[in-house]
Amino acid sequence: MSLKNERREAYGYGLDIATRWADCDAYGHVNNINYYSWFDTAVTKMMYERGVLSMHAPAIGLCVESRCEYFAPVEFPEVVEARVRLGRIGDKSLTYEIGIFLAGREEPAAAGHFIHVFVDRETRRPVPLTPEQKAAIADLAVT
Amino acid sequence: MSLKNERREAYGYGLDIATRWADCDAYGHVNNINYYSWFDTAVTKMMYERGVLSMHAPAIGLCVESRCEYFAPVEFPEVVEARVRLGRIGDKSLTYEIGIFLAGREEPAAAGHFIHVFVDRETRRPVPLTPEQKAAIADLAVT
Amino acid sequence: MSLKNERREAYGYGLDIATRWADCDAYGHVNNINYYSWFDTAVTKMMYERGVLSMHAPAIGLCVESRCEYFAPVEFPEVVEARVRLGRIGDKSLTYEIGIFLAGREEPAAAGHFIHVFVDRETRRPVPLTPEQKAAIADLAVT
Amino acid sequence: MSLKNERREAYGYGLDIATRWADCDAYGHVNNINYYSWFDTAVTKMMYERGVLSMHAPAIGLCVESRCEYFAPVEFPEVVEARVRLGRIGDKSLTYEIGIFLAGREEPAAAGHFIHVFVDRETRRPVPLTPEQKAAIADLAVT
Repeated sequence: MSLKNERREAYGYGLDIATRWADCDAYGHVNNINYYSWFDTAVTKMMYERGVLSMHAPAIGLCVESRCEYFAPVEFPEVVEARVRLGRIGDKSLTYEIGIFLAGREEPAAAGHFIHVFVDRETRRPVPLTPEQKAAIADLAVT
Repeated sequence: MSLKNERREAYGYGLDIATRWADCDAYGHVNNINYYSWFDTAVTKMMYERGVLSMHAPAIGLCVESRCEYFAPVEFPEVVEARVRLGRIGDKSLTYEIGIFLAGREEPAAAGHFIHVFVDRETRRPVPLTPEQKAAIADLAVT
Repeated sequence: MSLKNERREAYGYGLDIATRWADCDAYGHVNNINYYSWFDTAVTKMMYERGVLSMHAPAIGLCVESRCEYFAPVEFPEVVEARVRLGRIGDKSLTYEIGIFLAGREEPAAAGHFIHVFVDRETRRPVPLTPEQKAAIADLAVT
Repeated sequence: MSLKNERREAYGYGLDIATRWADCDAYGHVNNINYYSWFDTAVTKMMYERGVLSMHAPAIGLCVESRCEYFAPVEFPEVVEARVRLGRIGDKSLTYEIGIFLAGREEPAAAGHFIHVFVDRETRRPVPLTPEQKAAIADLAVT
């Protein structure tokens, strides 16, 4: 299915994110790079809330791939909801699928994905997710 | 009075702003430049809410000076409150005074000011604030 | 061919971009979102130099899709070279393919693409690229 | 003397910094917050070049105050030169004075200052600058 046809309920986790004045570029709407900041923020916040990542945890998630399709402009001072679900759940990586929704709209303004590989904070060598970590986010798997 | 000794109630307007993952720098806390993004966002949001500025209004506010003192670090995923009051209310300019407060803390994590000069969107020539515009924000004047 | 195996000479245009201190995130390397800022900057600079886009031209390029794969970290104060070539040259859109190269390295630190749809600055309705515009960038087509 | 009347030669260190497309805001010029990113980048680059700071040195510089006056707009794709000199050289802190200059212009587009307090990377307790560190930057003191 096209990402444009996805709806809010297809994503199990949501985080409201307010636009900032400096997010806008010379075309008067939020610049494309800031959507990735929303992706990154929603994903990391979810992982913190579920206890899988934290500011000082031994393992960190490094972004190895991201992608976004843009369907509609977002202007300041709109508040978007970044909604997250899990695509592929690997042994040492997770694919998050994210939709960006404007208030009152069922269709996404943008959608894409973001892949974390988990590594040791110090050595930066890959480390596997534990069964407990996978269980803490299992409800967000795409169905 | 030192800005460090100011308290929340000294500022009449407040806006909650969530930190973003990318706000942090290599030292693990929010980079100094992002506080100015919070200043800019809170000030502009307040001016939009009061009907003085808008995305397509004929006059815009250009920043001609800003300053910030940093008292305590802010980490992701904290939510700060940016509180705003008005310092000098000029004919064609406004000085906003802003304090940044962490949840549950009465003392600011940072504080400073931001000065807008109002200009015509097209010509960029200074334009005066109308009496109606000044009235719409008069309650925020520092006492 | 995998993007990781592309080399500098496969991209016809290059722009050196210096990292900024605030580009780094809490992991001590440049945050993933800033690579898209480099994509955006290199693509737009190239289009300005070739006379296809400009700050006040009647047509503007809106990003409708972007994607990046990350192969190696970049740290401050490294200078990267963003190299650009053209993938699909559509009637009203262009796909730019971009590689990010660290100094002295032949393999990319990251690579991806970025798609502009061209629209009228005021109406935001799609407008075709002229033959002259296509000719001005034809040498950058992927071979 | 007013900062607006300072000239390039009054600052001993200079770094060219290219604007990025996303630096611009909805008014079509570089947003005020990005000047602080230029300050931060020029100061940190200078301190790395002089061997006083580095990505993994035991002491780091935390920004405790910054201020900027804006005199003229900067547009993409201009390249600015951020010029730096030292104001107050304290035992555990440095005040950097910075001017931002457009190509071919002798008067600054913006100017301000930035204060670092030096602290231990781990404990975040203040640490003094060594005589060697002070000597490495002494030539940049304002005269």
